This record gives sequence, C-alpha cells and structure tokens, in this order.
Amino acid sequence: MSRAHDNDALRISMPRLRSRLDALAEIGPIDGGGSCRLALTDDDRQGRDLVAMWMRDLGLRVLVDEIGNVVGTWPADRTDPPVMTGSHIDTVATGGRYDGTLGVLAGIEVIETVIGAGLELDAPLAVAFFTDEEGSRFAPDMLGSLVYAGGMPLEDALSIRGIDGAVLGEELLRIGYAGAEPCPARPPRAYVELHIEQGPVLEAERVTIGAVTGVQGISWTELTITGQSNHAGTTPMSMRHDAGFAASQVAVFVRKLAATLGPPQVATVGRVELHPNLVNVVAARATLTVDLRNTDSAVLAESERLLHAFCDDLAEQEGVDISSRSLARFDPVEFDDGVISLVDEVARAQGHTAKRLPSGAGHDAQMLARVCPAGMVFVPSARGISHNPAEHTDDRDLEAGANVLLHVMLRLAGKK
Amino acid sequence: MSRAHDNDALRISMPRLRSRLDALAEIGPIDGGGSCRLALTDDDRQGRDLVAMWMRDLGLRVLVDEIGNVVGTWPADRTDPPVMTGSHIDTVATGGRYDGTLGVLAGIEVIETVIGAGLELDAPLAVAFFTDEEGSRFAPDMLGSLVYAGGMPLEDALSIRGIDGAVLGEELLRIGYAGAEPCPARPPRAYVELHIEQGPVLEAERVTIGAVTGVQGISWTELTITGQSNHAGTTPMSMRHDAGFAASQVAVFVRKLAATLGPPQVATVGRVELHPNLVNVVAARATLTVDLRNTDSAVLAESERLLHAFCDDLAEQEGVDISSRSLARFDPVEFDDGVISLVDEVARAQGHTAKRLPSGAGHDAQMLARVCPAGMVFVPSARGISHNPAEHTDDRDLEAGANVLLHVMLRLAGKK
Repeated sequence: MSRAHDNDALRISMPRLRSRLDALAEIGPIDGGGSCRLALTDDDRQGRDLVAMWMRDLGLRVLVDEIGNVVGTWPADRTDPPVMTGSHIDTVATGGRYDGTLGVLAGIEVIETVIGAGLELDAPLAVAFFTDEEGSRFAPDMLGSLVYAGGMPLEDALSIRGIDGAVLGEELLRIGYAGAEPCPARPPRAYVELHIEQGPVLEAERVTIGAVTGVQGISWTELTITGQSNHAGTTPMSMRHDAGFAASQVAVFVRKLAATLGPPQVATVGRVELHPNLVNVVAARATLTVDLRNTDSAVLAESERLLHAFCDDLAEQEGVDISSRSLARFDPVEFDDGVISLVDEVARAQGHTAKRLPSGAGHDAQMLARVCPAGMVFVPSARGISHNPAEHTDDRDLEAGANVLLHVMLRLAGKK
Repeated sequence: MSRAHDNDALRISMPRLRSRLDALAEIGPIDGGGSCRLALTDDDRQGRDLVAMWMRDLGLRVLVDEIGNVVGTWPADRTDPPVMTGSHIDTVATGGRYDGTLGVLAGIEVIETVIGAGLELDAPLAVAFFTDEEGSRFAPDMLGSLVYAGGMPLEDALSIRGIDGAVLGEELLRIGYAGAEPCPARPPRAYVELHIEQGPVLEAERVTIGAVTGVQGISWTELTITGQSNHAGTTPMSMRHDAGFAASQVAVFVRKLAATLGPPQVATVGRVELHPNLVNVVAARATLTVDLRNTDSAVLAESERLLHAFCDDLAEQEGVDISSRSLARFDPVEFDDGVISLVDEVARAQGHTAKRLPSGAGHDAQMLARVCPAGMVFVPSARGISHNPAEHTDDRDLEAGANVLLHVMLRLAGKK
C-alpha cells in the first residue's frame, strides 16, 4: 500500500474524543446534562486550564494572546502559518455539551491522531479556542476571533463591560488569561471549524455532513411603539392607539415578509414587551425585536427596507409612533470555494451524505474568513435544539465530523 | 314661586364638593396628583375615617356592615328603604382623584344640599361607600357591593387572601371596619351612582351627561400557547412552531373580530408574555389575555365562540398547542328603564347635552341592579384617561353631574 492509501484510512479515536467531551462538560455542570461556562468566569478558567493542559500534554506550543485566545500549534517548533481549526469553550447560561466544545476537542483529537500516525505535513497544524464567542456575558459575540482578525481594536475590546458590570480586560487578568501574543494575529494558512448545525436541516434531510457555504447576514432591529394607554372596556375600537396591536401586526408582517422573499430568508419576532401589560388596559407601549437574516446581502437590505416601510404605514394607520434602533448588523459572509468543495469531497469520499448549506448562526470561522481561506463542517443537531442542555448529536455523527475535519486539514496542510 | 320651582332651582355647592375631593386626595398621595388607597390598608382606613366623619358631621346615621360597606342615612331616624347613592373610595395603586371618590363625595354634597334647603322627602336618602371596588388588593372587584347584594356569601368574602397575603376579614378587623350590619342587606328603594366615564366617548362627542344604560358583559380569557423554542437563524420558516407568532395572530384576529361584530363589541389583547423572550430565539411559549366585552349577552357569547374556533385552526396551522382558561366572566347588566330615562330627562332639563351609553367598566351600581331599580350618571373623562394620576374631569362637568344626581335622587325620593 502506498503512503497515500495509509493516510486515507486514518481515523480519529471516538472514545478519546468522547472522554474529553464528557470531562469538559463536568465543568460548570447544569441540570439536564448541559454546562454553564460564561466567558471569563471561574468556570471558564477551569475549562481553559483543562483544555490547555490537554494541548500541552500532546506537546503543542500553547500561546495565549492579548484577548485571551489560546492557540496550540504542532509541531511546537514550527512558526510558519498553520492550518488552523478551533472554536470556543465558553457557553451560554443554558449551554449544551457540543456548541463550540466539539470544534476545539475534535481539533485536539485530529492533532493527536496525526501525531500518533507519525505523519509529516507541509504546514503545521493548530487548534484554537477563542474568547467570548457566545457574547452572553460580554457583547458582542465572536469577540475573541473578531479581535484576532483585526475587526475590533484590542483596547476597545478590553474595556467592554459585561452584564454583571465586570470589565473584560480585568477579568482576563483575574483568571490569568491576559496573554502576550499580539492581536490582531498573523493570519493562518487556512481555517476550518467543525461545529454542530444548531438547526434542524441536516437531521430532517438525513444528511450527515454539512459543507458550510457561508454565514447569513444578520439584521437585528428593536422597535419601540408608543400608543396610548386606555381602558379596554370603555374605549371604542375606533379611538384606540394600541401599541400591543401594532406590535402584533409587525410580527404577522414579518412572517409574510419571509414567505414573500422565500428561503433562505428568515424573520423572527422573538422578544415582545408590553406596558403596562394588563388584561384590561390597551397597551401604551410595546418594545419588540425583529431578527432578519439572509445569505444575500441585497435581499437582506430589501427585507429591512420592507420592514421599515410597513412600520411607517402602520404608525399612520394606528396613530402610534414607531421608533427603530439597530441592535446588530452583519453582512453575509461567504466561505472559501476551495474549502467548501474540499469539505464536500472529503465527506463523500468517506461515504457520508453531504449537503452544502449556509449557517444561520454566527461562528468564529466567519471572523477568520476575513484573513484567510476559511470554511466549516457541520454535523446534525437532534431536533435542531441548541443553547439548551438537551443539545444532542449522535456519537456516530460526531465521529464522522471529526474524521472529515481530519482529512480536510491533512489536505490543506499537504504532505511533505 | 311654587315649591316645585324652588326645588328645580336647587343646586349643589361646587366649592364644598371641591374641598372634600381635594382633602380626600391628600390621603395616600402619589406623584402626579393621584392617590393610592388600596382596599383595607392604613390609607384606606384614613380615607374611611374622614368620609365617615363628614357623614356624621351632617347628622347622618352611619352604619358599617359585615363586609365593611359604610352607609350614611338621612334623616337619621328613618329606617324605611332609602334612595341610595354611593360608590367607593378605595383606589388602584396608580389611582386618580375622581374614580369612585366623586360618587361618594357628590352623594354627601347632595344630602348636605337637601338638608340645607330644608326639604322633606317621601323616602330617606342614603350615601354609601362599598368595600374593595377596585379589586386591586383582593379579587374579585366590586366585592363589597357584590356581598351587599347577596352575590357572594359573606364567609367566602371574608376569607379572600390578598396579593400581599393578607386575609380580608382580618384586615377589616385590623382597621376597625368589621361592622355589625348584616350582609346581604335589605335592598334600598332605588340606587343611582355618579361616576366619571373612564372612557373617551362623552368628551369626543362633546356631551356633558351620560345616562348609563347598563354595563357591558365581560369575558377574560388567558391563552397559553406552547410551541417549540428554536434558533432564529438556523430554523427554516417551514419548520417553526412559533408561539410568539401565534400570539400575534390572535391579537390581530381579535381586532378583526371587533370590527366584524361592530360596536359596542370591544376586544383587547393587553397582556403578552413570551418565553424565553430573546431576540434570536423562536418563542417556545406565549401567554396572552383576551378581553371581550359586549352589552348583548348573545353577541358576547358569539365573540367567545369565534375566538376559540380561531385558536383551534391556528393551533393546527402553526403546530402549536393552545390552552385556554377563563379569568373572569360577567353577563351584561341592564339598568332600570325608569332610572335611565330620569337621568336623561333631568340632564336635559338642566340644559346639559346628554347621551345614553353603556359602561365599559364595572361599577357597584351593577351589583345594586340585582336588588333594586338602579342607574348611573356619567361625566366626561379628559382623554378617557383613568386609573392614572392624570385622570381629570373639569369642575364644570363635576358640578353638572352632581346637580343631575341631586335632582334624580329628589325625583326618586318624591316630595312629601
């Protein structure tokens, strides 16, 4: 057998990956089997210490940068741009066991597998975990990779205040992860990230591997509708300026908007608050959010325009005031064609079903895509559930994803 | 001039009424010039003590009944059924100066005016303030008049627990208003109540006096919609079971329902709560209330039927579960034709514009209507605002209402 055939047959060890997934999930455990490791808390530090120790035990060179991102490189003495994988190990407050964690621990497993096989590669390999991907404690999300890729000045990031009043830079120092490596960093040769889909598409279509084509653009708008508080019994319908009714009209419109624009447009009103929020009082005020996403930049902008036009008409009809505030706005990201094709090809070569699909959620890979060829591998999420202790992916799918990651990285790194 | 002409020219004293309104508003004062006297609190006791003192100072016989209702009768030695007026002096937490208070203090002013004029009447006059009309501390509302009219056993009422955990009977004892007069009480000869409209109709139509025809029936339904929490970015529209969207559909339907059934049908979704209520999560659960009112019992029942039919279809379409719970249900009340006509006639005779209209809010008069001929006099509420420190009625309108009350009571009591 040729060397090439040997390499093609190379596979990660699922028991080893499983044991690391379980050990990390034990840090910050929550009811239902999930984890809570909000960024830069003591639980996050414990998780970081454990994962960094695993990296060091494998002989990787482990460096911490100024925003607390941790990168392990193999071989330890190589300083040329690596083929990098990674993700994050911070979680939301009601986190599952796989979101982020899978990408980091599968990356370690890939490198351990390569080391074990005695392979020599053209480029070094690296595995990273990025600070504060979730953004649950410090907004915005994907912060560590954003700073890594030069998308936000370090000083701005360090001075961000969290929901608990803590300052990010002080918390980094406190937990011992204010590193010396400069940010923005020198770009890697390529970046590919394994992640659970966090959506229902792969499961519903019985596909094992997603070759992620990019990340949807996101537009978050907060609308504040001001009407007039009135007695629900004494105020004729014709004399109402009902902020609650107007909010409902927006939510119903937003569903129609998604239908009109068609997939992959999605549109969601997930948060609604009425004031005074009483059974017998016409609401004086409503605050609601509209989450619009599309992979096509122009269509996303059109969806925003249609929303605002609708609100203008609605304000006029109902005699209410509608003010609007952008909470977040990211243009769509397209991953590298070469990496997308490689993921698709490797998955099929290993006998898996594969599908090209965009990501509806944000990921560190989209920040890395600013500075190097980047892509992602998705594995199915049971019932699409994520950010929840019930988050689940079958071991068979986790293993498939890690093996696709292994061979994509081998192909990107090249044989010596 | 004949005695009849003398009586027709009789008028209340607005300065006296104004001074009592202002003095009572000083008890439990809140920002913006309103009052907070939740039922059976120390502030309510202070208000009761003051108003009962005014009654005694006029020589009325003041009796407290077992549920704490206070009735002042003139002449003090008359025990035959009186022509009664009254209302309540408890308030909501954000109460104005006129809701309830006007009816009680105008009643005292009417009796002081009659005493001052030296009139002798066929029937005695009485003025009452009923316990816990607002229901803000102890549910249900209109409790004192409900027990007075025999609509709830005394023992049940005394054991009601308030929002602060206090027991109604114990609070009555604590503040010294657990009286000896039996409940249910002996019905008065007739009952007429002056109240602010708490709605915008009279002001909008530039009418001074409302001859109230009855009280709308009320149906309060709480709907709990259970869908599935999902990621707003990764979940295609076709795979959603969005409890928040379904809640919005209900609110939009409810507005259409009112339009279809036409006035006086009103329909309001005043309370909506989503869970988890996050910008980027499709809501798993929504709780909302639907407030339906109509003066016609059959139409009110039809509105409920249409709501439930809509919810059944909606649950099917969106793949959600919708459960329903009745929070309150009162049939419409019709006031006495004779009293309605009398209010209308007296108002016009005094040169006021008058309009027959139903009440959208509940009032003690609807409980008294169970046991005697009853009716109400409405005066305009500026911008329809009530349950708010900004509650306002011009002195000119307050005075007009009190003078209409005076002459309606004189006509009901008859000249000796």
